[in-house]
Amino acid sequence: MTDLATRPAVPVVPGGDLVPDVLDAQALAAVDHWWRAANYLSVGQIYLQADPLQREPLSPDHVKARLLGHWGTTPGLNFVWSHVNRAIRERDTQALFVAGPGHGGPAVVANAWLEGAWTEAYPDVDMTEEGMRLLFKQFSFPGGIPSHAAADVPGSLHEGGELGYSLVHATGAVFDDPDLVAVCVIGDGEAETGPLAASWQANKFLDAARDGAVLPVLHLNGYKIANPTVLARMDDDELEQYLRGTGWDPLWVSGPGDGEDAAPVHQRMAWALDTALDRISENQRAAREHAAAHDGDPGDRPRWPVLVLRTPKGWTGPHDVDGQPVAGTWRAHQVPLSEVRSDEGHREQLRAWLESYRAAELFGDDGAPTDAVLANRPRDERRMSANPRTNGGLVKKPLRLPDFRDYGVDVPRPGEQLHSPTAVFGDWLRDVMAANPETFRLFGPDEVASNRLQAVFDVTGRQLADGPQDGDSHVRRDGRVMEVLSEHLCQGWLEGYLLTGRHGLFTSYEAFIHIVDSMVNQHAKWLKTTRQLPWRRPLASLNYLLSSHVWRQDHNGFSHQDPGFIDHVVTKKAEVTRVYLPPDANTLLSTMDHVLRSEHYVNVVVAGKQQALDYLTMDEAIAHCTRGLGRWAWASNDDGAEPDVVIACAGDIPTQEALAATAVLRERLPELRVRFVNVVDLMRLQPTSEHPHGMPDREFDALFTTDKPVLFAFHGYPTLVHRLTYRRTGHHNLHVRGFIEEGTTTTPFDMVHRNDLDRFRLVMDVIDHVPGLGVRHAGLRQEMVDARLAARAHAYETGEDPREISGFRWDPSF
Amino acid sequence: MTDLATRPAVPVVPGGDLVPDVLDAQALAAVDHWWRAANYLSVGQIYLQADPLQREPLSPDHVKARLLGHWGTTPGLNFVWSHVNRAIRERDTQALFVAGPGHGGPAVVANAWLEGAWTEAYPDVDMTEEGMRLLFKQFSFPGGIPSHAAADVPGSLHEGGELGYSLVHATGAVFDDPDLVAVCVIGDGEAETGPLAASWQANKFLDAARDGAVLPVLHLNGYKIANPTVLARMDDDELEQYLRGTGWDPLWVSGPGDGEDAAPVHQRMAWALDTALDRISENQRAAREHAAAHDGDPGDRPRWPVLVLRTPKGWTGPHDVDGQPVAGTWRAHQVPLSEVRSDEGHREQLRAWLESYRAAELFGDDGAPTDAVLANRPRDERRMSANPRTNGGLVKKPLRLPDFRDYGVDVPRPGEQLHSPTAVFGDWLRDVMAANPETFRLFGPDEVASNRLQAVFDVTGRQLADGPQDGDSHVRRDGRVMEVLSEHLCQGWLEGYLLTGRHGLFTSYEAFIHIVDSMVNQHAKWLKTTRQLPWRRPLASLNYLLSSHVWRQDHNGFSHQDPGFIDHVVTKKAEVTRVYLPPDANTLLSTMDHVLRSEHYVNVVVAGKQQALDYLTMDEAIAHCTRGLGRWAWASNDDGAEPDVVIACAGDIPTQEALAATAVLRERLPELRVRFVNVVDLMRLQPTSEHPHGMPDREFDALFTTDKPVLFAFHGYPTLVHRLTYRRTGHHNLHVRGFIEEGTTTTPFDMVHRNDLDRFRLVMDVIDHVPGLGVRHAGLRQEMVDARLAARAHAYETGEDPREISGFRWDPSF
Repeated sequence: MTDLATRPAVPVVPGGDLVPDVLDAQALAAVDHWWRAANYLSVGQIYLQADPLQREPLSPDHVKARLLGHWGTTPGLNFVWSHVNRAIRERDTQALFVAGPGHGGPAVVANAWLEGAWTEAYPDVDMTEEGMRLLFKQFSFPGGIPSHAAADVPGSLHEGGELGYSLVHATGAVFDDPDLVAVCVIGDGEAETGPLAASWQANKFLDAARDGAVLPVLHLNGYKIANPTVLARMDDDELEQYLRGTGWDPLWVSGPGDGEDAAPVHQRMAWALDTALDRISENQRAAREHAAAHDGDPGDRPRWPVLVLRTPKGWTGPHDVDGQPVAGTWRAHQVPLSEVRSDEGHREQLRAWLESYRAAELFGDDGAPTDAVLANRPRDERRMSANPRTNGGLVKKPLRLPDFRDYGVDVPRPGEQLHSPTAVFGDWLRDVMAANPETFRLFGPDEVASNRLQAVFDVTGRQLADGPQDGDSHVRRDGRVMEVLSEHLCQGWLEGYLLTGRHGLFTSYEAFIHIVDSMVNQHAKWLKTTRQLPWRRPLASLNYLLSSHVWRQDHNGFSHQDPGFIDHVVTKKAEVTRVYLPPDANTLLSTMDHVLRSEHYVNVVVAGKQQALDYLTMDEAIAHCTRGLGRWAWASNDDGAEPDVVIACAGDIPTQEALAATAVLRERLPELRVRFVNVVDLMRLQPTSEHPHGMPDREFDALFTTDKPVLFAFHGYPTLVHRLTYRRTGHHNLHVRGFIEEGTTTTPFDMVHRNDLDRFRLVMDVIDHVPGLGVRHAGLRQEMVDARLAARAHAYETGEDPREISGFRWDPSF
Repeated sequence: MTDLATRPAVPVVPGGDLVPDVLDAQALAAVDHWWRAANYLSVGQIYLQADPLQREPLSPDHVKARLLGHWGTTPGLNFVWSHVNRAIRERDTQALFVAGPGHGGPAVVANAWLEGAWTEAYPDVDMTEEGMRLLFKQFSFPGGIPSHAAADVPGSLHEGGELGYSLVHATGAVFDDPDLVAVCVIGDGEAETGPLAASWQANKFLDAARDGAVLPVLHLNGYKIANPTVLARMDDDELEQYLRGTGWDPLWVSGPGDGEDAAPVHQRMAWALDTALDRISENQRAAREHAAAHDGDPGDRPRWPVLVLRTPKGWTGPHDVDGQPVAGTWRAHQVPLSEVRSDEGHREQLRAWLESYRAAELFGDDGAPTDAVLANRPRDERRMSANPRTNGGLVKKPLRLPDFRDYGVDVPRPGEQLHSPTAVFGDWLRDVMAANPETFRLFGPDEVASNRLQAVFDVTGRQLADGPQDGDSHVRRDGRVMEVLSEHLCQGWLEGYLLTGRHGLFTSYEAFIHIVDSMVNQHAKWLKTTRQLPWRRPLASLNYLLSSHVWRQDHNGFSHQDPGFIDHVVTKKAEVTRVYLPPDANTLLSTMDHVLRSEHYVNVVVAGKQQALDYLTMDEAIAHCTRGLGRWAWASNDDGAEPDVVIACAGDIPTQEALAATAVLRERLPELRVRFVNVVDLMRLQPTSEHPHGMPDREFDALFTTDKPVLFAFHGYPTLVHRLTYRRTGHHNLHVRGFIEEGTTTTPFDMVHRNDLDRFRLVMDVIDHVPGLGVRHAGLRQEMVDARLAARAHAYETGEDPREISGFRWDPSF
C-alpha cells in the first residue's frame, strides 16, 4: 500500500486515502524502464547531435548549436504513455494518444521510436546507435522535424501547437468507434483556453453504446510559459467540483511527495489507470446491453473517469540551474540548461542528467532498446504510434453517395420558380446520412434546422446523452447530428472524426464561422504537411456549408453579416483550399457531391437557405460546376460577337441582382451586347500559377475579354476578386461590387442597396463604364437613381421588401 | 414565505428550502409594473407599427409587414432589469447591464425607453404615444434600428450578436472601477461556447479591493434556436458543482411553478438579488480593509455570488400556437405568432397577449409610463441605460504618456548595432503603466515576458487572485498585467475595459491572434457603428502588439507561423483599421506612441522581439513614421535620378533581408541605381479613395515609379500587398516576396529561404526583373544561387544560422 498523492484532498478510494499497489516488481520495472528510456531520448533530442549513448565525455561538439524545444511537459507525457502501454498489453486495449501539450514533441517522437513506428515511417532513423543519433539531430533542426507532435510523428493526429483542441479532437476520434479509447493529455495551460473549457461537455454528446471512450488526463504541472496555471492553483475541492460538475469522475494521482522516488507514483498511476479503464468498460457494457434491448438507446448518461495527474514541470530534469530552481517551476518550460556548449557547469549538469536515466539498462551496445524496455511495448497495431486510425486515410471507408441528380429540381425556364437551395440539398443529405450510418456526421452550432437541413431528422436525430424531454425536437441519445452552440466544438469534433478516417459536414452561419479561423488554419497546415509525407494517406475533406449568409440575415443585424471567411481560407496553401459559390439549388447539389467526394481539402461552400430563383437544369448545373465558371447563354446577347460589357457574378444574391440588371439592360438597351458570366468555383479566377483550379490566361481573356468593362457582382468583399485577378490582362477593366461592411437588421433589398450591389446600381455601373453610354442614356441612368430611391423610400415607409412588390422588374428570364 | 424554485435541488437558505418574502406590496407592485411595461413594449416592437396603445381593435394595418426579432429571451431580460432597478433604488448601486442574449434587443430598448435614456439619445422617439409608435416601428425595420442590444441602444456596451463574450466584457468593465457592479445575463445557449466557458474563471483575476464586481445571472430558459441547452439539462447538482468549481456561489431562482403567478418568482428573485449584493458588499468590505492594512493586497480570493435563473423561454407569451406548445419551448425563440397580418386567429392571440400586460395600468393616455411604473426607475446616472461608463468615451481619461523619445536607442550608423525592439518598447511601456495606474492595463496569453516586455514587472505584477506561491515570478493579487492562456479572455477583458473608457494593449504571438478574429470583427463593427452615432464618444483604440512573429518562431513550428491577422483586419471598414510594421526599435517606439494616443481604431502593430539591427535615429524614426513610408536615402543610390529598380520592404525581417540584398547590389553592381523604400504604415499603400491613410497616386507614382521593377519584401502573405496596390499605375511591375506558407521549427535563415524572401533570392529577383541585367550578370546570379545552397547546406549540417557566421555579407551600412 502506498500513500496517496502529496496533495490528496480527494480520496480516490471511497472512504479512504490509500490505494493498493497494483504493479508487481516486474510490471513496475517495465513501466519505469520505458519511462526512463523515453526521457533519455527526449533529453537527447533537445541537446545532442552526436554520441547519443554518451560513450565519450560530453563535449561541446556533441551538443547542437541552437537548443530548441520544450522540456517541461515532456516527462509527464512519457509517464502517461508508458503507463498506457502497460494497460494496453494487459487488456489488449485499442488506444490512441492525444498530446495536448504538443510542445512536448520530444516525448511523442521518443515513444514512436521506441515502439518501432518511427523507423517504419522513416527507415533511415533505425533502431541503432546511428539511428538514435539521427533521431536526436533531426529534432528542431534545419531540414529535420518540428518540435511539436506534428504530422511528421507516427501516431499523432493532433499537433498541439495552438492550444485548446486536444479534447475535441479526442472526442471526434472516438465517435462511431466503439472499441477505441482516446487517451488525451490536457495541459493545465491549455485548460485555460475557451475551446478546452467548453470541451469538458463532451460527455453530453457521446453515446456509450456506439462510440468509443475518451480518457482525459488533466496534467497539472503547475506552470505555463511564465505563469502559474489557473487550474493548478484552484484548490483541490474546487477542481474536483469543476470536473464533477462537467460530468466527469476524477481520479487523482500526484507525486512524487517529499523523499519519494518514482515508484510510488507509478503505483498510484497504475491503480488510477486500471480503475479508469475498468469504469469505462463497465459504462460501455451497461450501455451496450441497454442499447441492444432498447433499439439502440444507450440509457442514462454515465459518468466517465478523468485522471488528474499532478507532477512537477520538468520532472527528473535539473533541480537548480545557476542558483535558480528549475524543476517544478516555470523555468523548466523550454531548455533548462541553455549554455551547454559554452558553459562547462551546464555541460556537467547535462551529463549528470542524462546519466540519471541509466542508459546502459535501457539501450544495448547497438543502440536498440533493451528487452527490459521492450517488455512494455504493445504488439503491432496496438502500439499507439502505429494505430492506423491516426493515419486516417489508411482506414477511410469510401462514402456511399446516392445519385444527386435524382434530387435536382426541374427548371423549365431559368429564373422562373423558387426553391430553397439548402432545403433541396437537405433531401440528398438525409439520404447520404442514411447510407453511411457509421462514417458520416453532420455538425452545426444549433443551425441545422435554421439552415433548412431538417430533412436529416427523418433518418437520425440530434445527439444528447441526457436524452429527450417533452417538447424537444428530434433529440436522441444516439443521434448523428452534432449540435452544440460552440463552433469550436463542432469544428474540433469534425476534425477528429476526419483525422481518423471518416466523413462529415459542418454547417454554420457564414459570419460566425470566423470563430474557428485559427482552427481551420491549423487543419489546413496539417493537410499541407501530410500531403508531403508519403506514408500519410489522404483524409476526407473538411467541408463547410455556410448559409444564413451576409445578404439574408433577416432576423439579425450587422454582427451576423460577414463574408470574410473565404478571404481567410484563401490565404492558406492553394493545394488544400477550395471555395464554391453555387447560385441555385441544382448547382449546390452538384457542388456538394463534388466536395463530399474530394479528399484532403478545405472546401468552403456558401449557399442561401431562403427561397431563391432556380436558373440551371441539372444537366446545365453539372456542366457549369464542372467548368467552375462560364457564360450563361440564355442571359447573354453577345452570340458570336465580342460583347460591349461583361456582367459577372458569384454567389446567389449577386447572381439574382446581376440577372435583374441584365434584364433591364436587355430590355432597355437591346443594342448593347451583354455577356453574362457566373462563377461557382472562385479559385478559377486565379492564374494557373497560383492555384491548381486556376483558369489559363488565354481562356480567361477569351471569356472576360481583355479590354471591355467587366462588372462583377460578388458575394463577399470586393477586394477578394481583385486579389484573385490582379494578374489578368483585363484586370484594370474589372469593377467589383460586393459587401462593403454596411449592414443592419433590415430587408434583403435594403442590404444590397446599402452595399451598392442592387440591380439599379449595377445598371448605373454599366452606363458609367461602357464608353459612350453615359451620354446617350443619361435618362435611363436617372431612372435607375430614382428607382433606387423609390425602393428605399417604400421600404422605409412600409417595411416591405421591394422585390416582393409586383410591378418591380426582376424576372431575368427572357 | 414562499416555496422555493420548482426545481429547488439546492437550498438557497442553508438548511432549508424556503426564502423570506423581501418585497412588501408596494415594492412588489413596482417591479411587476416595470416588468409588464417592458414586456408590453417588447411585444409592441416585434409586432406593431401603429396604434401602440391598442385604442382600436387590432387590425392587419397595425402590424408590420415583416415580423423580425427574438421574443424567447426577452421577458427574462426584462425581469432581471426590473429587479436590478429595485436594488439600485434601494442601495444607490452603480450598475450596468450586459445582455448576453443580445438578441433580446426589444428588452434593452424597452428598458432604455422607460428610463428616458432612449429619448435623451433620440429626441424624436419621445415618451408619448407617437414616440411609442416610432419606438415600435423602428425596431428591425428598414432605416430603423437593429434587433440586438447593439451600439444604438443607450446603456449597451455589448451587442450579443456573436455569442460568448458577455462575461468577459462585464469583467473587463469592472476592472479598476471599485464601485461598479456589472450585472451580466448569460444565456444558457451562450454558456456552451468556449469563450463563455473559460470566462467563469474571471474570479481568479479580479481584485476585490480595487475592482468592481460582476454579478452573473445564468439564465436557463432551456432552449437555443431549436435544441435544448446543455446547461439546462445538466442536473442541478452538476450545475451547482460546475459553478462552485469555477469559484462561484450559486443562488437559485426558478419559476413559475405549477399554478404560480409571477409574484412568488418576484419574491425569490428579490431575495436572491439582495443576498448576492450583500455578499458582494461584504467581499469588497473585507478585501478593502485587508488592502488598506496590507499595502494593497486584498487578501484571499473571495467566493462571488452567481444567480441561476430558471424561467420558461418566452415567459408570458403565447402558450400554444396552431396546436403546438410555444412558451417554454424552442418555438418561442423568435416570433411566436408569425402570421398576424393574414391569420385572424394569430391576430386574436396577439391581442390577448398584449392585453395580458394591462397596458392601462402602465401607460397614461399620453403614452408616457405611469407613476406605478416609474416608481421603479432609478435616478439620473444610476439608470443602467444612462450609466456614462457604457458610453466609454464620455468618461475616458486621457492617457499620460512619458516622452517616448527619451527611451530611444542611439543609432550612430544604420544597421550597425542590435536591440530587441519590443524590449526597448518595454521600458517605455513600464513607465506608461506606472503613469496610469488606474486607466491602463496590459493583456496577454502568458506571453508578456516571452515577447520581452518584462520591464513592466518593475512597476506591477501578474494578476492572480489566489496570490503568489514560492517560485512564482511577479505574481500579485493586485497586478495590472492580465495574463491567462486564453486569447478570448484577453481580448474580451480588454474590450470591456476600453468600452468603459479606459486604455490598454494586447500583446500576443502573431499566429494565435487569429483565435480572436471573430471578436475583432465584432469590435470593429461596434466602432464603425458608434462612429455614426453622434451621442457616442470615441473610445481608446484597440491596440495589438504582435510579436514572436512568423519569421522568428525558433522554438516552435509551422503551427506558430501565420501572418494573416493583418489580412483579416483590413477587410473591416477602412476608417477603423490601421496596420503598422515598424522595422526597428525607434520606429516601434514612435508607432506605439501614436497608436496609444489614437482613438476609435483597431491598431495592429507587428514587431520583433529578437535582437535586430537598428536603422533609424529617433528623429529619423519620427519623420519616417509620420510619413508612414518613404525612401531611405542612406540605403539608396538614385540621388537626383530615376532609379533602375525600387527595393521596397515592410516588416523587420524583410527589411533586414532587403537591406542585405541592397548591400550586395550596391557593392557588386554599383552602376545600378537602387531606390530603397520602407513601409511602416501599411495602409499608405492603398489609394486615398480606399483608406484615409492612402497615399495620393501622384506621390505613390513618384516614389515607386510607374515603370520600373519594384521588388517588395513583405512580412505577410504577398497577396495582401497586391490587394492594397492593384489600382496603382505601376502595379504590373510589382513583385512581392513574403510568407508563402512554408515553415517548420528551424533557423531564422531557413525560414526566409523556404519562403524565397532571403537576400540571395532578392538579388536574383532584381537581376531577373531589371531589363538587361540577366544577360550581363548571369555570373552574379549564379553566385547567389550557390550562396543560397551553401547557406542551406551549412545550416542542415551544423544547425547554425548562416547570419551568425562571419564572412556572410549582411551589413547593410555603407
